[in-house]
Amino acid sequence: MVHRGELTVATRGRGTYDITREVTRIAGESKAREGLATIWVHHTSASLIVCENADPAVRTDLEAFVARLVPDGDPLFTHRDEGEDDMPAHVRSVLTQTSIGVPIADGRLVLGTWQGLYLWEHRTQAHHRRVTVTVIGA
Amino acid sequence: MVHRGELTVATRGRGTYDITREVTRIAGESKAREGLATIWVHHTSASLIVCENADPAVRTDLEAFVARLVPDGDPLFTHRDEGEDDMPAHVRSVLTQTSIGVPIADGRLVLGTWQGLYLWEHRTQAHHRRVTVTVIGA
Amino acid sequence: MVHRGELTVATRGRGTYDITREVTRIAGESKAREGLATIWVHHTSASLIVCENADPAVRTDLEAFVARLVPDGDPLFTHRDEGEDDMPAHVRSVLTQTSIGVPIADGRLVLGTWQGLYLWEHRTQAHHRRVTVTVIGA
Repeated sequence: MVHRGELTVATRGRGTYDITREVTRIAGESKAREGLATIWVHHTSASLIVCENADPAVRTDLEAFVARLVPDGDPLFTHRDEGEDDMPAHVRSVLTQTSIGVPIADGRLVLGTWQGLYLWEHRTQAHHRRVTVTVIGA
Repeated sequence: MVHRGELTVATRGRGTYDITREVTRIAGESKAREGLATIWVHHTSASLIVCENADPAVRTDLEAFVARLVPDGDPLFTHRDEGEDDMPAHVRSVLTQTSIGVPIADGRLVLGTWQGLYLWEHRTQAHHRRVTVTVIGA
Repeated sequence: MVHRGELTVATRGRGTYDITREVTRIAGESKAREGLATIWVHHTSASLIVCENADPAVRTDLEAFVARLVPDGDPLFTHRDEGEDDMPAHVRSVLTQTSIGVPIADGRLVLGTWQGLYLWEHRTQAHHRRVTVTVIGA
């Protein structure tokens, strides 16, 4: 069985956005008891991560780390059509995930206690980000 | 056909642990001739990688590289509930993989000659790490 | 339904190689209307990325960024059996992807307008790189 769901995340600029609930909903709609839910983001300047969901400071620190690792306006970058955060957004996306495959067991998404699914907006400005969830199962 | 297997890795602290044999075993149990085995780790401070399996120095060097890239006790980090290796473990996990999808062809996991599947423990202390393998195939 | 396709990329050394067309072709051969195409590279010194496909400077900048992040000949590395680019190639692979799962919807690979699928050769010399695409769908 294949079931497809879509969601759009209206970001308010750079940062992480919890999509666990929406992905869980789509997995539930599929009625799969066992299978796999594969998440896909349709962009190259926003990405997906699995991250600790209890202390928001984890995601603040993660943002600070990546901002230091891939600095906006780095003179190394020649591609800056859309500004100083343009090329860093592509690099951040490549260093994280465009697709993630989450198991479904006994009709539920298999997530550890502290695991949340996040869309990471890498551009400083707000965007609408499209995500497709493909459930394959039985 | 969907088949699910689970394994637990008892880590002795930071480092990489070969799970190729266990994943191969679960893929075999599924009896799939063609398909996909997707590995999932249930944590945000341990992750998955595909890495060279011949020279152990590759994984030692990898550990050294990441320890320099994401230093324990970095003053940038505010989240340190569980110590100086807490936030670095989350960052290392985000920069590597929580899920990996390995093909199955002619009844065997498709791995290149030098490819091994590893769980990477990012915390300095020992932990029990859960992994789920979902096989979808025919 | 499971369909498997393979392709070989003859690289001319370090750099990114567009495999979008070949993956699209294999997805088409499968006749899947809905499903998932999972790409796998059989190596630990070449990897997969999803990247912006419009301005080639994006991939040039990406290469420059990673070359600075993981320098060839870094004295930190002890594994250098095949030269100064040997261990950096493994690190670059671990920081990017060995597998990527792309959805298929309405008989087409779901790619955003600016998304391309690339094999990234991390060794300075030319290689033949094997890629397997596993399509699961209905």
